[in-house]
Amino acid sequence: MRKDSEEMCDSSNCFPLQAMESAKLETVCIFGTGDFGRSLGLKLLQCGYSVIFGSRNPKSSNLVPKGAEILNHAEAAKKSAIIIIAVHREHYDFLRGLADVLKGKVLVDVSNNLKINQYPESNADYLAGLLPGCKVVKAFNTVSAWALQSGTLDASRQVFLCGNDAKAKEAVMEIARSLGLMPLDQGSLLAANEIENYPLQLFPMWRLPCYICAVFTVLIFLYCLVTEVFHPLATRKEDTSYLIAISIPNRVFPVVSLILLALCYLPGILAAIIQLYKGTKYSRFPDWLDQWMLCRKQLGLVALAYAFLHAIYTLVMPIRYYVRWWTNSYLITQIKDNATYPFSNYYAWLSDSYVALGILGFFFYVLLGITSLPSVSNAVNWREFRFVQSKLGYLTLLLCTGHAMVFGWNRFLMVTRYRWYMPPVYTLSLVIPCTVLVLKLLLIIPCIDNRITKIRQGWERSLSKKSEAKLKTCSVAF
Amino acid sequence: MRKDSEEMCDSSNCFPLQAMESAKLETVCIFGTGDFGRSLGLKLLQCGYSVIFGSRNPKSSNLVPKGAEILNHAEAAKKSAIIIIAVHREHYDFLRGLADVLKGKVLVDVSNNLKINQYPESNADYLAGLLPGCKVVKAFNTVSAWALQSGTLDASRQVFLCGNDAKAKEAVMEIARSLGLMPLDQGSLLAANEIENYPLQLFPMWRLPCYICAVFTVLIFLYCLVTEVFHPLATRKEDTSYLIAISIPNRVFPVVSLILLALCYLPGILAAIIQLYKGTKYSRFPDWLDQWMLCRKQLGLVALAYAFLHAIYTLVMPIRYYVRWWTNSYLITQIKDNATYPFSNYYAWLSDSYVALGILGFFFYVLLGITSLPSVSNAVNWREFRFVQSKLGYLTLLLCTGHAMVFGWNRFLMVTRYRWYMPPVYTLSLVIPCTVLVLKLLLIIPCIDNRITKIRQGWERSLSKKSEAKLKTCSVAF
Amino acid sequence: MRKDSEEMCDSSNCFPLQAMESAKLETVCIFGTGDFGRSLGLKLLQCGYSVIFGSRNPKSSNLVPKGAEILNHAEAAKKSAIIIIAVHREHYDFLRGLADVLKGKVLVDVSNNLKINQYPESNADYLAGLLPGCKVVKAFNTVSAWALQSGTLDASRQVFLCGNDAKAKEAVMEIARSLGLMPLDQGSLLAANEIENYPLQLFPMWRLPCYICAVFTVLIFLYCLVTEVFHPLATRKEDTSYLIAISIPNRVFPVVSLILLALCYLPGILAAIIQLYKGTKYSRFPDWLDQWMLCRKQLGLVALAYAFLHAIYTLVMPIRYYVRWWTNSYLITQIKDNATYPFSNYYAWLSDSYVALGILGFFFYVLLGITSLPSVSNAVNWREFRFVQSKLGYLTLLLCTGHAMVFGWNRFLMVTRYRWYMPPVYTLSLVIPCTVLVLKLLLIIPCIDNRITKIRQGWERSLSKKSEAKLKTCSVAF
Repeated sequence: MRKDSEEMCDSSNCFPLQAMESAKLETVCIFGTGDFGRSLGLKLLQCGYSVIFGSRNPKSSNLVPKGAEILNHAEAAKKSAIIIIAVHREHYDFLRGLADVLKGKVLVDVSNNLKINQYPESNADYLAGLLPGCKVVKAFNTVSAWALQSGTLDASRQVFLCGNDAKAKEAVMEIARSLGLMPLDQGSLLAANEIENYPLQLFPMWRLPCYICAVFTVLIFLYCLVTEVFHPLATRKEDTSYLIAISIPNRVFPVVSLILLALCYLPGILAAIIQLYKGTKYSRFPDWLDQWMLCRKQLGLVALAYAFLHAIYTLVMPIRYYVRWWTNSYLITQIKDNATYPFSNYYAWLSDSYVALGILGFFFYVLLGITSLPSVSNAVNWREFRFVQSKLGYLTLLLCTGHAMVFGWNRFLMVTRYRWYMPPVYTLSLVIPCTVLVLKLLLIIPCIDNRITKIRQGWERSLSKKSEAKLKTCSVAF
Repeated sequence: MRKDSEEMCDSSNCFPLQAMESAKLETVCIFGTGDFGRSLGLKLLQCGYSVIFGSRNPKSSNLVPKGAEILNHAEAAKKSAIIIIAVHREHYDFLRGLADVLKGKVLVDVSNNLKINQYPESNADYLAGLLPGCKVVKAFNTVSAWALQSGTLDASRQVFLCGNDAKAKEAVMEIARSLGLMPLDQGSLLAANEIENYPLQLFPMWRLPCYICAVFTVLIFLYCLVTEVFHPLATRKEDTSYLIAISIPNRVFPVVSLILLALCYLPGILAAIIQLYKGTKYSRFPDWLDQWMLCRKQLGLVALAYAFLHAIYTLVMPIRYYVRWWTNSYLITQIKDNATYPFSNYYAWLSDSYVALGILGFFFYVLLGITSLPSVSNAVNWREFRFVQSKLGYLTLLLCTGHAMVFGWNRFLMVTRYRWYMPPVYTLSLVIPCTVLVLKLLLIIPCIDNRITKIRQGWERSLSKKSEAKLKTCSVAF
Repeated sequence: MRKDSEEMCDSSNCFPLQAMESAKLETVCIFGTGDFGRSLGLKLLQCGYSVIFGSRNPKSSNLVPKGAEILNHAEAAKKSAIIIIAVHREHYDFLRGLADVLKGKVLVDVSNNLKINQYPESNADYLAGLLPGCKVVKAFNTVSAWALQSGTLDASRQVFLCGNDAKAKEAVMEIARSLGLMPLDQGSLLAANEIENYPLQLFPMWRLPCYICAVFTVLIFLYCLVTEVFHPLATRKEDTSYLIAISIPNRVFPVVSLILLALCYLPGILAAIIQLYKGTKYSRFPDWLDQWMLCRKQLGLVALAYAFLHAIYTLVMPIRYYVRWWTNSYLITQIKDNATYPFSNYYAWLSDSYVALGILGFFFYVLLGITSLPSVSNAVNWREFRFVQSKLGYLTLLLCTGHAMVFGWNRFLMVTRYRWYMPPVYTLSLVIPCTVLVLKLLLIIPCIDNRITKIRQGWERSLSKKSEAKLKTCSVAF
């Protein structure tokens, strides 16, 4: 619907040229003639509202959009029940002088700060403290002035709002709806803090996963560079630098992807072990584990991105000059030697099962990615979400680990393949995934699994037998 | 927005450590100190509410989260206007004794059952029957206790609620919002039944499509196994078992995918035929047809998954040992025989148009898949949805059928290709798609199409001429 | 949730067979026994409402669903507080006669028109004008009669509604919820116009991008046809028509995709230049630029579709007969000549970096596509959206332009490659992208960038120094 209302709006009444002058809605007062105040005022005018600006200097009227009145603050406030405070928090003080005029009115705080948690209390809370007789509603701060004017409101159609007065909130929501926006009630004025922090965030949940991914990427890349470029150069004077463009990335991507996927499932296992050890679920996890668990989804999506790159880098192989040259060269040698290599069932099986495991792993990887789209994960219930993310997740990990194992299963112990005592990189990539899979295998042994299930249903080792008997059957206990 | 509010919540006030003790909201009473009661209580405390637990045995206070009071049921109920009944339905009886204390209060039923439709009436209805003086609201049952505690509320952020009293509902919605959840009003208490069944479901709409898909997959796989592995083994003692890993799956996937895609469009055609035959749209379809029509979307998505697998299985062909060996072997033979096969325009056209049809078919397949994402299909109107799902759907079916036909067009009648009198499997795969396309072609012949359009606009063959005249022009008739 | 409620609904109470007769909700009156009226009536009956039809001719009772009463208009209207007007606008006149009976009642206008903006005012406005004593609510017009009956409400679950009376709206929303639909309040009755136009639209935002894309596709296709098919035929009598199936499309797709991607970023640059030139952001852009800016998202998605096709068309290369024939033929020549072409580090680098740039470009292309899904773009704030669409967008353009440049970098000046004085098509494809990148590079020169930032924060060249000083720091100025 967001899309819908957006298009409905774009195509008609919210468009600068097509200002609807037929029906005048109520009057809205705006304090402040800054960019945001003017943009909001213009939009309100276009959508049929009467707009009055309150200004310290009402004569600088060239600043306000045509059709709007401009008065001093007190006069402007008298003419409307709703006053939008488009002023910096630093200047709120002057409002104290208007306390009598503003009494009982709805004040809409639209302000933003320059950094997260800049002040001890939210701007809206501060405003409510200054003017206890007013109904303060926090709203519109997530909407950009530029987007209001241009009409391209793609990411800022949502108006988060909160306030302690239900009727005041409803009045502001009605205005937001008339402007073609999507009001979203976030509860009491306590939520103002989060609403003010929201537009300042830049992918806060993605930072840790991206950092982890970057560290692994650089490490594995350097490892590959040493074994595959520096080693031949040092020992055989061979220039293999052309591997840097595709061959080495295509070794980095799958290795990092597999490690990250395993890291998605490791915190769940650690949490289970901690709960088993402490015998209760009511003790808090260490902070690093909490952080790690909260960013599993993002970690998984970064892993999927790398798996996607690995898939395409692999599929272009037959097109690359390097691969074609070696294939041709191999064939020419074979013909010149008049040798015929017989068809090997064993290699056919090995090569095909290697490829098939990779494809199936990638398929479930993509499936996991699709189910983590907000609209899809909102359309499944808790039981279904757990089924997909847990059951299918482990299946994906199993398939991808199998894919890596079949590729390198007989090279682990081939010391001849080691360069400068460094084993091939896929050997290293298997350490974490195999650990995770083995631990998970241990945790699903029935006797351990039962204990974990009991703990997660609220059982505590330290409780008396009596309470235990009472709690054991089900999660919504009496 | 769901994602937003989630992150807003995760990052600040709903987090265990950062309990906000500044502003105390109203008092909420919870009956029952089981796992769910305690988790909800903890969350309410963290979000600024005062929480009082009502318990049979108020002295077992070690069970309740710190900061909450624990009293007996009657005393606890007196202190709050909202009482959350976190007790099993089996124990509701004791509430009868508290009827006087609870009179006029809002009771929130959060209970879940162990299986779908366990009781004749919903738990909330049963509660409302026990205490006719109370305002019962069904809510919170779709939220998991574990998710409330861990803060990772990905799939259970939505709180479906229903009730007969609008104010009671609004009060519960406000609590849900304060907890960072997303309340969704489902109407009157009649909806409680569905709300209680919802968390017990495990992809109910996907069961039939997956079953159909599994049956076809097994059948086609066995068919291919017989013709491509058992037949060479029996007649020529040739071991082709290595085909099981990729070659046979890559025959099963496209064949099943094409059949399933055709099965998406067959029920629509059958419905049109039934409506034509009966001369009205006001008679019900047989149950199996209703079931079939309702799961078309899921059927199409399963078909898309198989098409995706077919695409990748095909693209890896040049990488496989088996394929490379045959290519090389073919080339060596050619060189040894000193033969040169001239370039054939005919084969170039055939091979390229075969591949191009497949790619275009896959492209529209993916487009259909994208438009069936909830957020995309909600952003289009009915006319647009029909355009995509019907027009583009048939185009996809046509392209994919064409793809299969070009591949095998000249092999239908090649009896030499038959093994044990079994025709190649793609021949069989074309039966249902071609039937669907031919039937569709018949239905869009103008005279038949007009008749169906009339029927679907409410025309009935049995109606009097007079009514017919009245109804014929448009769907919103007088 | 839409999906959820849909499935919840599908699985139980909204299904024809399982009409719930236990609890009767309020009585709803429907004027008009046309298709939509009957479908809505049947659905209301199934969901527990009492339904009374108002008809000119109450005796033609075979038309209404079983369980509904049928009376003349006045009698029917008396029995219910809510009257659904399922009648064509052309026939509204008769309602004037019922003004007394209808006074104070809620009238639900469900009508649709046959074309966009058919009448000067919306049907709901017209109705409100006819009966000033009634509370008119526009609703249900986006729901299809067919979908109501069949239960497959995929794209029409949303009920946009609007009206000037909040209580009347709430009552209609409650009915919509009971029917398993998703009411979406669009504000006052002014919105009725858009709500009535909505179901008549067929991808209005996609028309211009698709048209632009089609024009470029045809032009480039013809250009390729001339240089690659007609030219060899005319000069060497060589039949290369087989290139039409894949080779030429695979030249058209990337070229058009790159041009369209550049066209997404060109209007932003033009807007910045206009703002720089005029020295203010408060003057309107020319209409064509407004249109162009509003369809950038769709333009980008069309470009992504072409990039996707290009990727697959490229990956199938080694499977095509034409490519395999030339590879073999090249190898045979090499063997016969007993020549060995040495491995070239230069070509390995060139081929690999060409491919790698293409893959990375495609990867970011896909990322841009994913973030433009409604549910994803709603889950990011304005700052994040700008980061993705602007920063990542230019990175994509840069990578894709690089991909095209490496491919053809040394062929620009090779006049021998020109056919009939026509340069290779990828040379032409680079004109627009390179222009965009160069202009962007100029605009991010610090001194110019600062000026644009100032203008976008509300600074105007024509303003007095005093106002300027007041406005320069931040967008929410005093």
